[in-house]
Amino acid sequence: MSDSILDIETVDLDDEKNALVIIDQTLLPGEVKVLHLTAQNEIWEAIKTLRVRGAPAIGVAAAFGIYLAAKSIDTDDFDEFYKKFKEASDYLNSSRPTAVNLSWALKRMEEKVLLNKDKSVKEIKNILLEESRLIKKEDTDICRAIGENTLTLLKPGMGLLTHCNAGQLATTKYGTATAAMHLGQKKGYNFKVFCDETRPLLQGARLTAFELSAAGIDTTLICDNMAPTVMKKGLVDAVLVGCDRVAANGDTANKIGTSYVAIAAKRYNIPFYVCAPTSTIDFDTSSGESIIIEQRDPYEVTGLWYEKPMAPEGVKVFNPAFDVTDAELITAIITEKGIVRAPYKENLAKVCKGV
Amino acid sequence: MSDSILDIETVDLDDEKNALVIIDQTLLPGEVKVLHLTAQNEIWEAIKTLRVRGAPAIGVAAAFGIYLAAKSIDTDDFDEFYKKFKEASDYLNSSRPTAVNLSWALKRMEEKVLLNKDKSVKEIKNILLEESRLIKKEDTDICRAIGENTLTLLKPGMGLLTHCNAGQLATTKYGTATAAMHLGQKKGYNFKVFCDETRPLLQGARLTAFELSAAGIDTTLICDNMAPTVMKKGLVDAVLVGCDRVAANGDTANKIGTSYVAIAAKRYNIPFYVCAPTSTIDFDTSSGESIIIEQRDPYEVTGLWYEKPMAPEGVKVFNPAFDVTDAELITAIITEKGIVRAPYKENLAKVCKGV
Repeated sequence: MSDSILDIETVDLDDEKNALVIIDQTLLPGEVKVLHLTAQNEIWEAIKTLRVRGAPAIGVAAAFGIYLAAKSIDTDDFDEFYKKFKEASDYLNSSRPTAVNLSWALKRMEEKVLLNKDKSVKEIKNILLEESRLIKKEDTDICRAIGENTLTLLKPGMGLLTHCNAGQLATTKYGTATAAMHLGQKKGYNFKVFCDETRPLLQGARLTAFELSAAGIDTTLICDNMAPTVMKKGLVDAVLVGCDRVAANGDTANKIGTSYVAIAAKRYNIPFYVCAPTSTIDFDTSSGESIIIEQRDPYEVTGLWYEKPMAPEGVKVFNPAFDVTDAELITAIITEKGIVRAPYKENLAKVCKGV
Repeated sequence: MSDSILDIETVDLDDEKNALVIIDQTLLPGEVKVLHLTAQNEIWEAIKTLRVRGAPAIGVAAAFGIYLAAKSIDTDDFDEFYKKFKEASDYLNSSRPTAVNLSWALKRMEEKVLLNKDKSVKEIKNILLEESRLIKKEDTDICRAIGENTLTLLKPGMGLLTHCNAGQLATTKYGTATAAMHLGQKKGYNFKVFCDETRPLLQGARLTAFELSAAGIDTTLICDNMAPTVMKKGLVDAVLVGCDRVAANGDTANKIGTSYVAIAAKRYNIPFYVCAPTSTIDFDTSSGESIIIEQRDPYEVTGLWYEKPMAPEGVKVFNPAFDVTDAELITAIITEKGIVRAPYKENLAKVCKGV
């Protein structure tokens, strides 16, 4: 396998060619295809159909997308510009209405427009270009910082285990849980990484095993239910996972199955680390109990990948998208601002808010 | 879904029509097709290609198969009969050389021939008919006894969780882990059963969810990594699993992922029961450490069920068929002779050997 995938940015802007540049993730791992999207409906479709996915990557794609829309608005009149900007923004936002980073990035770009309404439309377009690139740079910087902080907890040659894809393919670079793996690889750390396949959508098999293999990292794919077996064999020195939301007390919502890994890691005395940009720490949520878990389509479990029915027709299916890992199972939460250990309520606030 | 599947025996003999009667399990859950196999090469093919599977069911199929072969031998001369019997037995045994119950059943039938060599060939054929039916009856009796013993530990309305298929479809009736579910259903116990899909081969989704649904039992399919979530929600009052081998100290080898369920059950204080015919208890194996775990084809994980590649080509895969659940995680081992609790070394010998 070539390592070309790592030379390709997950999301990028080609300003000269007026194109959003992405890897089409729906074709992975079978095919690495780079798309240059210029029309707004192409960008909309790419977000909608998960050609670009992962919260940070979606945010950056939206920022570049709305910049390209703004750039194409042919007027010097602010009111007309803003009206058309809003239309384009609403349109992009409709591609995945529940994706928080999508609306967050579009909102942030709109605020830049409003803050600079006294400037010329041409100047505003340049400000939007800078802001979109800043959004991307911030994400890359955060991921790298998380990776560097994580590396301080690891040693060369260690066996690592990860669940789902909190990887480069979900961010602009490095990923969160995978950041230390990618950075370590460049330093010759020779980590041996086990990837849970992560049923039902198999992000671990399709994406994480792919991006780590492509980076030349020693990668072994396992079914989710094999994690305690590799742990018991002494092959795992640390678990690294991403997160969707961390509550104020440290309880962590992440892809379904994450808490299972944490429970097994505790049994085998293996450190369990959550890699979390501070933006995912939600101080308004006091504990995991108040996090509402989305139920997804039963078909993801019974038939999505299969050529013939793999479960009896009409069988009831319980298909939660996430689970909550109790804070007591988490050895540390690794943010871009530092490593947080229990008691989380106190220490998360200290690190994130400086209080 | 009709409950017709339960009126069909997994393995049966139609002596009048000289047929081995089986459900073709390769077509489940999409189609319920009953096969009447009369030719020896049909029976061989059915065992070889897993149309009939599960250790006890294979043993019974072999017993009926060799009886039908014996019945068709047209001679009154013992030596000629025995020579042809041996040929037929060797042929059937070659269908799945590693299946212990296959060779065990054929051996038991051969011993009956040799024990009765002074009788007429016609009488020997009748003895073989009786013996094959006895092998089936013994399996059914053992499963029912395990089910009845299990029921003494359960209450109506309980939530149960099982892994893989230790079900009616693997035995002649009732199953082992599922026996209490089937018996309880007839008593109106209204169990609510969660079935782990059981990657990579999905026996839980394809077979267990199917046979329980068909029996009218409240059945919910989950991915393996969702088990701790349903446990944490308080939906599981007991875990019931089968086993491939129980060591003298109670360590239990069973389908990969079983130990994960046991670890989570311990965290949530849920009883974890292993349903084990005494024939699976191996006093020659002192602990789980000496049980060798078969590694299976990586393709089961990366591509078996998929229309397009779901993992990067050539990625390393760790695919153990079984894992070992430490005895300390097992609340009780339920045999046909009684319920065994720790200390297992002492109590397994007491119950199984009466010492």
